[in-house]
Amino acid sequence: MDANMIPKRTLKRLPIYLHYLRSLPEEVAHISATTMAKNLELGDVQVRKDLAFVSKTGRQKIGHSKQMLIEDIEKCLHLNNQTGAVVVGVGNLGQALLEYGGFSKFGIHVLAGFDIEPLGKSLKTEKPVCAMNRLRAFCNTYAVGIGIITVPADSAQAVCDVLVDCGVKAIWNFAPVQLKVPEDVVVHNENLAVSLTLLRMDFLKM
Amino acid sequence: MDANMIPKRTLKRLPIYLHYLRSLPEEVAHISATTMAKNLELGDVQVRKDLAFVSKTGRQKIGHSKQMLIEDIEKCLHLNNQTGAVVVGVGNLGQALLEYGGFSKFGIHVLAGFDIEPLGKSLKTEKPVCAMNRLRAFCNTYAVGIGIITVPADSAQAVCDVLVDCGVKAIWNFAPVQLKVPEDVVVHNENLAVSLTLLRMDFLKM
Repeated sequence: MDANMIPKRTLKRLPIYLHYLRSLPEEVAHISATTMAKNLELGDVQVRKDLAFVSKTGRQKIGHSKQMLIEDIEKCLHLNNQTGAVVVGVGNLGQALLEYGGFSKFGIHVLAGFDIEPLGKSLKTEKPVCAMNRLRAFCNTYAVGIGIITVPADSAQAVCDVLVDCGVKAIWNFAPVQLKVPEDVVVHNENLAVSLTLLRMDFLKM
Repeated sequence: MDANMIPKRTLKRLPIYLHYLRSLPEEVAHISATTMAKNLELGDVQVRKDLAFVSKTGRQKIGHSKQMLIEDIEKCLHLNNQTGAVVVGVGNLGQALLEYGGFSKFGIHVLAGFDIEPLGKSLKTEKPVCAMNRLRAFCNTYAVGIGIITVPADSAQAVCDVLVDCGVKAIWNFAPVQLKVPEDVVVHNENLAVSLTLLRMDFLKM
């Protein structure tokens, strides 16, 4: 199924399904929409419909072949189309994102980190960690699609401006600040404090 | 307004509003629901209704007083009710979460980290980083409500079991694995790879 034929809302749930399917124990060979819905806390009908868009392998009572469903979703998400990313601000969080192995499974390659205190190389995976003034040249040389901002709030806009200026069209912003970008640039704000607060609300039974 | 009188869906958006309001420049004194809706990519009517639930300070053409709106939301979220948390697995990500200053503004205090390689203290904020075998005693001594799991996938369930056994009722899980917990325990899975994939989809204009 061509991704253009899939409703946008379904498409946005595919990474969640893919992540879930990959996290299942190896011995699980088949899975039903009902089981997936239950474990992901989504509606049964919704998951069933979503899966019907991406895969024709579902069979009554048996469910979907896990492996075929994974492959069908990977195709829909164009995971063979690789996207390059850089991390700006290599503190603890930046370093974690630079070294995290899970992104490449989703077609995203974090190529390098940039910081005012360049380390040379990251500790575990030995990815380059360069000085900020090399960011522009790096983006011009490599196909960098995504910029990940993990600098403190007061320098986030300046970093964002450089990234946009270098042609980066998607920003993943961890700094607690509203970034100003041109219309053709997408910003996703990651609010870890908000995520944890939502969990706290469940904990307090609010 | 008592949090019990506010619809759950509204309540779940309050941390997002609060984070946004706090991230605005100091010189912003008033803000309208329309501006907030636009910047947060939410519906205008929805934000207006949500704010009406929590605050009576909105005035036509002027909007809400930013400071009063912040205080009203803080009250609704019971931010004076402090919640203790521990981080298990103090690699880069665990360390970032242990040292992150933004949680306390939401009434959450990350008290300590636990790891098979205990560091003694975290680098910047000097929070205790203890050996795994001290986790149980720590949870019994301090009021730990939330457990943050940042260990590799293959040890996440064992860590989760210890936390649950110690009476922790809310788990924030960064490991790419489905955790099994009793019914009275809440698990929020944080999938950084899924978040970045959603941004990549926007970037690819999918």
